Amino acid sequence: MTTTRPTPLLDRVSWPRDLKPLTLEELETLSDEVRSFLIESVSKTGGHFASGLGTVELTVALHYVFDTPRDLLVWDVSHQCYPHKVLTGRRARLQTIRQKGGLSGFTSRAESEYDVFNAAHASTSISAALGMAAARDAKGDDYHVVAIIGDGGLTGGVAMEGLNQAGFLKRKLIVILNDNEMSIAPNVGALSGYLLRIARGQIYNKVRGDVASVLKKLPAGQRLAQMAEQIEDAVKHALVPGTLFEELGFTYVGPIDGHNVPGLVKTLRQAKDHPGPILVHVLTTKGKGYALAEKDPVFWHGPSPFKAETGEIAKKAAPPSYTSIFADTLIQLAEKDERIVAITAAMPDGTGLDRFARRFPERTFDVGICEQHAVLFAAGLATQGQRPVCAIYSTFLQRAYDQLFHDVCLMDLPIVFALDRAGLVGADGPTHHGAYDLSYLRVFPNMMVAAPKDENELRHLLASAFVTGHPTAIRYPRGSGSGLALDPQPKPLPIGKGEALRVGKDGVVVAVGDPVLPAWRAAERLAAEGGASLTVINARWVKPIDKELLAQLVKPGSRVITVEENAVAGGFGSAVAEALDELGIDARIRRVGLPDRFVAHATQAEQRQEVALDEEGLLRTFREATSAVVPIRPATTRAAS
Amino acid sequence: MTTTRPTPLLDRVSWPRDLKPLTLEELETLSDEVRSFLIESVSKTGGHFASGLGTVELTVALHYVFDTPRDLLVWDVSHQCYPHKVLTGRRARLQTIRQKGGLSGFTSRAESEYDVFNAAHASTSISAALGMAAARDAKGDDYHVVAIIGDGGLTGGVAMEGLNQAGFLKRKLIVILNDNEMSIAPNVGALSGYLLRIARGQIYNKVRGDVASVLKKLPAGQRLAQMAEQIEDAVKHALVPGTLFEELGFTYVGPIDGHNVPGLVKTLRQAKDHPGPILVHVLTTKGKGYALAEKDPVFWHGPSPFKAETGEIAKKAAPPSYTSIFADTLIQLAEKDERIVAITAAMPDGTGLDRFARRFPERTFDVGICEQHAVLFAAGLATQGQRPVCAIYSTFLQRAYDQLFHDVCLMDLPIVFALDRAGLVGADGPTHHGAYDLSYLRVFPNMMVAAPKDENELRHLLASAFVTGHPTAIRYPRGSGSGLALDPQPKPLPIGKGEALRVGKDGVVVAVGDPVLPAWRAAERLAAEGGASLTVINARWVKPIDKELLAQLVKPGSRVITVEENAVAGGFGSAVAEALDELGIDARIRRVGLPDRFVAHATQAEQRQEVALDEEGLLRTFREATSAVVPIRPATTRAAS
Repeated sequence: MTTTRPTPLLDRVSWPRDLKPLTLEELETLSDEVRSFLIESVSKTGGHFASGLGTVELTVALHYVFDTPRDLLVWDVSHQCYPHKVLTGRRARLQTIRQKGGLSGFTSRAESEYDVFNAAHASTSISAALGMAAARDAKGDDYHVVAIIGDGGLTGGVAMEGLNQAGFLKRKLIVILNDNEMSIAPNVGALSGYLLRIARGQIYNKVRGDVASVLKKLPAGQRLAQMAEQIEDAVKHALVPGTLFEELGFTYVGPIDGHNVPGLVKTLRQAKDHPGPILVHVLTTKGKGYALAEKDPVFWHGPSPFKAETGEIAKKAAPPSYTSIFADTLIQLAEKDERIVAITAAMPDGTGLDRFARRFPERTFDVGICEQHAVLFAAGLATQGQRPVCAIYSTFLQRAYDQLFHDVCLMDLPIVFALDRAGLVGADGPTHHGAYDLSYLRVFPNMMVAAPKDENELRHLLASAFVTGHPTAIRYPRGSGSGLALDPQPKPLPIGKGEALRVGKDGVVVAVGDPVLPAWRAAERLAAEGGASLTVINARWVKPIDKELLAQLVKPGSRVITVEENAVAGGFGSAVAEALDELGIDARIRRVGLPDRFVAHATQAEQRQEVALDEEGLLRTFREATSAVVPIRPATTRAAS
Repeated sequence: MTTTRPTPLLDRVSWPRDLKPLTLEELETLSDEVRSFLIESVSKTGGHFASGLGTVELTVALHYVFDTPRDLLVWDVSHQCYPHKVLTGRRARLQTIRQKGGLSGFTSRAESEYDVFNAAHASTSISAALGMAAARDAKGDDYHVVAIIGDGGLTGGVAMEGLNQAGFLKRKLIVILNDNEMSIAPNVGALSGYLLRIARGQIYNKVRGDVASVLKKLPAGQRLAQMAEQIEDAVKHALVPGTLFEELGFTYVGPIDGHNVPGLVKTLRQAKDHPGPILVHVLTTKGKGYALAEKDPVFWHGPSPFKAETGEIAKKAAPPSYTSIFADTLIQLAEKDERIVAITAAMPDGTGLDRFARRFPERTFDVGICEQHAVLFAAGLATQGQRPVCAIYSTFLQRAYDQLFHDVCLMDLPIVFALDRAGLVGADGPTHHGAYDLSYLRVFPNMMVAAPKDENELRHLLASAFVTGHPTAIRYPRGSGSGLALDPQPKPLPIGKGEALRVGKDGVVVAVGDPVLPAWRAAERLAAEGGASLTVINARWVKPIDKELLAQLVKPGSRVITVEENAVAGGFGSAVAEALDELGIDARIRRVGLPDRFVAHATQAEQRQEVALDEEGLLRTFREATSAVVPIRPATTRAAS
């Protein structure tokens, strides 16, 4: 692609080795060019934006000071890795980012040897880097390992677990704390306040103030003034601003300006020479250099394509999203039940809880990037009679898996889990697919799980979730609904009851969630083309599953096809099979769902086509499964199948 | 039960209200009596011991100062709750603890209104207590919420997540840090070092030393001495020992002696009046008052019944445990492959890695109570060519579920997971059963999962796990093996291959793990009594499953019975059904495994009998499933099934 503004220096830099001969001044110029390029490129493709703009100078300085890829850079979350991709041979391909067959939006070991660890969920970098450092030492090698983590990522407990062991093991390890006072949303938590006090110099000042007030009471004089200064130095020495990190065994350096290349280079060189664990506290501005993004980094975290000059985003006319319908419905329900409170783990915008928070600020809790705590906090609320809803993306709820078991299901606490981004999510790719929730949730006793076929049903299932008296998860997809008319009031549907959408004589399709409508349409087309006539069930509930309806519609020997946008392994299809087993109905079951491999980034439509979960794919499957001759497929010997 | 030593005061105290009229002196006497009673009682029943002895005075003081159960005590892990049970109406039933139908070894909401939150996994109390405090405030109520957490529990990241939000929300909340320098094993991590420095007064002393050295350089004199004192006070004020907690928004009080009742009462009363979050740092001795337990609190963490006078433990002659055979095998493998390193999350004894650590101290990492970090640390090691094995109990690996997905399977890193305590675990009950691993592990692409039928096969499967080239979990049960002779060398078995143990004509039993042998014996008995003759497959691998063997032995229409000590939901049986679906073989499948409810504490034998996973139960099931008339069971309308 051609850029509007010339980038003469960047044009000479494809790899980190090209940085080495540059002067500090040239590195500054290069940083400006990288930033210009990023603005141009992301404005055309969309993608993560404000985070990358904030780390341009840091990335340049890291690749300048360290000998990558021999030295290892471990990017936390890695949505800030676009400058890193630009400087590691991937500039030309940046225009393909997040598209089918293009670059991943995150670090990827498969993509580049400079990407030493994959990431997209937060808070993992310190622990992984410590493992790398331990391996290095075991091998007697001497390369450097650098974890780059945001202040948002630091609120995830596993980051503290990593710091805790790193400070204990005393291996040579560099942690860069990229402090921009943000996760995706503005940061929360006491640690965030602590970092802010450091940045403002308030911690040292407090002590100095206390000491000074003692000194003031004494008679003035040359000697005393001199002594006061020395005492101040002693106190200052004892009280470096990063006491908290020092107490955890790290040497603390900072805070330093993350947009000053010479300063970064100097400090990183010092850090490189440090024999043990060291934390470099770098202050950056999210969205740096693009005024709109600096002003509203939440909006500009991951925009769609936009006009670089004006920031204008081409709006597509689309029906309301599942997210917004969830939020509006929750507000309606909360108007009538003051026990309802909502919890998000640093995703108020993504989950729609920003709307809820505007209506009920006192009943909304953004706990930061910590799903474990979010679920436990909800459990505490539930024991005292509140009716918490945890709005967490399907993939991120995996972080709280043990809490679901140990702190929710074991005590059978009535908590509602609103799982957005269930199924295939498109451009974010495999780290973000909500591909496993139906499998991993239904194994726990007391847990109930439902998935609506459309956004109107989402409203009613959400209302239902509050009346089950048990922990209940509702999972729904990323993106727009079908645009159908919404019933004015959300009303509970019968718990554990599905519905037959059509009745046929040649077999039964049992579908749940988003694929119900395409499955229904596919069945209609199959019948219309003279093929089999299939019953189609909208199951709604994965657990408890509607055994009565199954017993009524599935006859011994029936051909049953299950459809879900979840892993086939242990998912809804297996729930249907288990139910038929319990009912003593021997049926011939074919499961349709996500395969046992990772589905790469692409659009949701492309991904659904790839795994045959769109209408056309389902039609093909229905045709094949109901054709007279069902070939016995041969046994395969694939290793992991 | 009668106690050897008289407990006249305790005999008058059944409930917390009975404490209120006592004097502080009487409370001290009462503490001694509670301790005597605990020693007597646990020596007869076995159970958690050293932790409870360490918290006797704290428990007495808490129930004296607070108005329980209106005020809420949230015990972390809760293995230290025996004194709490004694003082809340359950003294007489303590002799039934951990036995079928008896008291739970942990807090249980179902058991007592004084148990406000169930716990058995660590680090949950602060988050749950904060949720309770938030609910209290929402309701405009004013009861107190107290979390009691050990220094070991504090190393779990979710505890830090809880502190972080608590310090931010500023709700009235009391956290008691019960600092005994131990988790189950001696504590590790930088935080632990920090607490130790506080306990020894080293933090304040360091600063005082720095300041004093400045003052020393000045001419002596009355005025300066006085000034030095004032400066010292100012510095001291600024530098309370708990700076780290203060920076996280807590008021810190301590450290105080956790065995001094009057001191505890005084401090807890102060804490009760504090308007915001406050952390009370209490120093206790694990095993306090029982010399042997003070000396070796690891051994006395949860002993079998013993002679109270001598500490002698009646040893049962039993074959070596799966744990010890795992450890010995790992040592053998590591002798030949120096890349093998082992990781435990604060369970060196329970996992057998204490043996490994004695042989390979440099290749063993105890990371503390933090499974998330353990798995990430292993992932970092694996990226650099090491061959880590994470030895983690099945139930605790749930804590690292997202790491398994995001940091292991997505990158397909060859890490070995040794899952001890898989299946039913006996006295610890539902929190500790490894009931879900086969279901939750097999959903992730690249993951491989195996389970040995006996301890000799464990040796060979462990060797296999190191040659798959993929993340591989081996799960095995708690307790002794069958005592069979062991092959001298562990040798890899073919990956994904099972074996037929017997061949029959009337159906196929496909079993995995511990129930293989009882299933085999049951099949032999069924044939001997003139019933059906069943093929019995020892599957070994849950993933990849042996499709070739299934295709060979399962004919269309065959009766298939799957057997596993894992939840039926999504487990091995469903893996078999999915494989047959993929093979296009329509079979009549009956799944035998753990039901969709929690199995209460009892012996393992009792639990297996209860769920019909013992030989007798399997024989009954095989008889029923292969009888000519298979009744169609009616649809049920149970809510969560």
